[in-house]
Amino acid sequence: MDAKALISQLADSARLAARTLSVATGAERKAALLVIADAIEAHCEQIISANELDMERGRAADLNPSLLDRLLLTPARVKGIADGARQVAALEDPLGKTLRESVLPNGIELKQISVPFGVIGMVYEARPNVTVDAAVILLMSGNAALLRGSSSAAESNQILVTVMRDALATTKISPDVIALVPSDDRETVKALLNARGKVDLVIPRGSAALIRMVVDDSTVPTIETGAGVCHVYIDEFADLKKALPIIINSKVQRPSVCNAAETLLVHSNIAEKFVPIALAALNEAGVILHCDADSLALTRNIPASLATDENWSTEYGTLEMNVAIVDSVDAASDHIAKYGTQHTEAIVTENKENAARFIALSDCAAVMVNTSTRFTDGEQMGFGAEIGISNQKLHARGPMGLEAMTTTTWIVTGNGQIRS
Amino acid sequence: MDAKALISQLADSARLAARTLSVATGAERKAALLVIADAIEAHCEQIISANELDMERGRAADLNPSLLDRLLLTPARVKGIADGARQVAALEDPLGKTLRESVLPNGIELKQISVPFGVIGMVYEARPNVTVDAAVILLMSGNAALLRGSSSAAESNQILVTVMRDALATTKISPDVIALVPSDDRETVKALLNARGKVDLVIPRGSAALIRMVVDDSTVPTIETGAGVCHVYIDEFADLKKALPIIINSKVQRPSVCNAAETLLVHSNIAEKFVPIALAALNEAGVILHCDADSLALTRNIPASLATDENWSTEYGTLEMNVAIVDSVDAASDHIAKYGTQHTEAIVTENKENAARFIALSDCAAVMVNTSTRFTDGEQMGFGAEIGISNQKLHARGPMGLEAMTTTTWIVTGNGQIRS
Repeated sequence: MDAKALISQLADSARLAARTLSVATGAERKAALLVIADAIEAHCEQIISANELDMERGRAADLNPSLLDRLLLTPARVKGIADGARQVAALEDPLGKTLRESVLPNGIELKQISVPFGVIGMVYEARPNVTVDAAVILLMSGNAALLRGSSSAAESNQILVTVMRDALATTKISPDVIALVPSDDRETVKALLNARGKVDLVIPRGSAALIRMVVDDSTVPTIETGAGVCHVYIDEFADLKKALPIIINSKVQRPSVCNAAETLLVHSNIAEKFVPIALAALNEAGVILHCDADSLALTRNIPASLATDENWSTEYGTLEMNVAIVDSVDAASDHIAKYGTQHTEAIVTENKENAARFIALSDCAAVMVNTSTRFTDGEQMGFGAEIGISNQKLHARGPMGLEAMTTTTWIVTGNGQIRS
Repeated sequence: MDAKALISQLADSARLAARTLSVATGAERKAALLVIADAIEAHCEQIISANELDMERGRAADLNPSLLDRLLLTPARVKGIADGARQVAALEDPLGKTLRESVLPNGIELKQISVPFGVIGMVYEARPNVTVDAAVILLMSGNAALLRGSSSAAESNQILVTVMRDALATTKISPDVIALVPSDDRETVKALLNARGKVDLVIPRGSAALIRMVVDDSTVPTIETGAGVCHVYIDEFADLKKALPIIINSKVQRPSVCNAAETLLVHSNIAEKFVPIALAALNEAGVILHCDADSLALTRNIPASLATDENWSTEYGTLEMNVAIVDSVDAASDHIAKYGTQHTEAIVTENKENAARFIALSDCAAVMVNTSTRFTDGEQMGFGAEIGISNQKLHARGPMGLEAMTTTTWIVTGNGQIRS
């Protein structure tokens, strides 16, 4: 069967199976997740054996150590995957929530409620835990999951999906709500991205290149995740005792992730005092510095280069940071509007008006006031599991948990009213 | 200047101008709408003169009478346009609403608030009132509007935009938040649809062909509006006194619109009694009937043809209707899943379980229980002005008013907390 026919068949059977989710109660969906969690723990040995095959292939193919580490499953990691499913089962049911409600003058009752999308395709990279994390989030939110992982994790993904499907076979929910899309052929990704009308939504999760490819090539609606050139602006009214730890945490705590900061903006009125302190602290933390002309004049003995347009636009993902001096909240916002990626922007200030103006002029998924950019995260924000961070404005914006995997419908209940 | 450069320039200046909207209060945006409404009434004569030029050109080009009627402006219609702007000004401010709010264990305050999209492109057809309706909805929701109307309404749209921009020039809001995209060149549409990164959202409004073109060709996120193959299902537990007026109203009251019904489904247990009555009433109302084999056997003397697969899939927009007999709620939902367009589906029943099951198995923007499909409408549902009806699941679903023109951001307020 060619890739297009295969995806079409998987999607049709997923949609039919999703009807067993549509009529299942929240308690039945939660119970199914717990059955899956137990099954994963019970099959730990087989899962690790399958993973060892992927690891061997990976080592033979000279995958780099960080990729190999992401691919690796251990008993502790398998337990962690099962516990993750249990955590999702413990969250509030995202379906059937009344979002808006009113009674019209003609007596008609109007309700907007949350409902599943239907069939969701996930396109992701090496880490096999995503296979289970995504499947249980989608299942709990009433959606069927077409999972297209990396070929490097093919054996691990296959056993995980088999275990989950076998577990579902003991419940009222059809196993066909979880399907693994074969990863031995690039054509299956292409077919998934173009299954318009068959697949309701595609979510890419992985490198910037993967996300770009999905967003560019998909005719199915997609949610663009990740990618952040995030800024920290230290206002003239900042409490500098808070500012320094916030800068260091935003840049240094985990530089590889999308909510790490890339650029520090400092108000000119405090620059002479604060920039040397900030640069010294960043330098001590191992951060390579790229400064505008004004801040370069304040480096003292700290090594730094003159920042280029490319620096201001780069998501480093490493211990590198740009520094610029600006004259106002508006100037900071201008810089961010020019170089930002609408992810997370932070202001450090004790002045409420400046905070409000910074918020009004920001156009991004999250604004941080007196705290680290690193808090743009589903778990940190209390949503439980996270399926990604949306960097776009349609439907979802910011960390996406269970609720973001639902759409809405209007329920209009009358007593025979007709329109005149 | 070529079309791409022109759109790029209009979008850049709209985005810059939109910052005057970002920092304007709701009261200031409302006041601007009232200034616009007054200016439109004050320039009624010039507007009608400009419209007469479009009408002359339309008559010379042999436009059909219904298109000419949609193009026509009269003093009463101009007054209606101004009053429409006043109605939008009277609605609740959709910006800055707190959608979710919590305090995290570390003391950080979390708020999700509604914010504008930024720059929105509208692509629409003949009716010049859309120029003002769309501009004021977008302005009130904090968005800049790039308006690409039909060349047939070029003179009318030009004067309306000029009057609105001149009115804005007397306020704190930059006139550049409203721009008319020249309609003398198809390339401007193409450039607008591909101004990714410059334009946040494109909304098409018009014929199915226009919507299809926008959805297929746009690299900018778009909201697909309209297009409905809507069904009315009469359950075995229906109150038949309610059923008949609901069917007639759904089909006959305004057959040309997307929320009119195309197919009637009747439960087999009541078919023998109800189908002949329903067919007679529809026939009397001038409706051409296409029946499945079972209902065709119950037509008595009413003319009807055997429905084809094409009939079941067609949005007639005229006085034609399909009829089928089904054995259960699930069978009705199966038919709808096969032929529906996820717009509006209705059930008539006094049985709450059957209503709940029909709702759970439906996958559409609105479900009607014991009322007409014609109520899927922003004004009827109490949203005031409507910018379209979304037939898709991302972001907006169903009638879209002011609120649907906003997206969200997370405001995270701390006191120096950093992530460990």
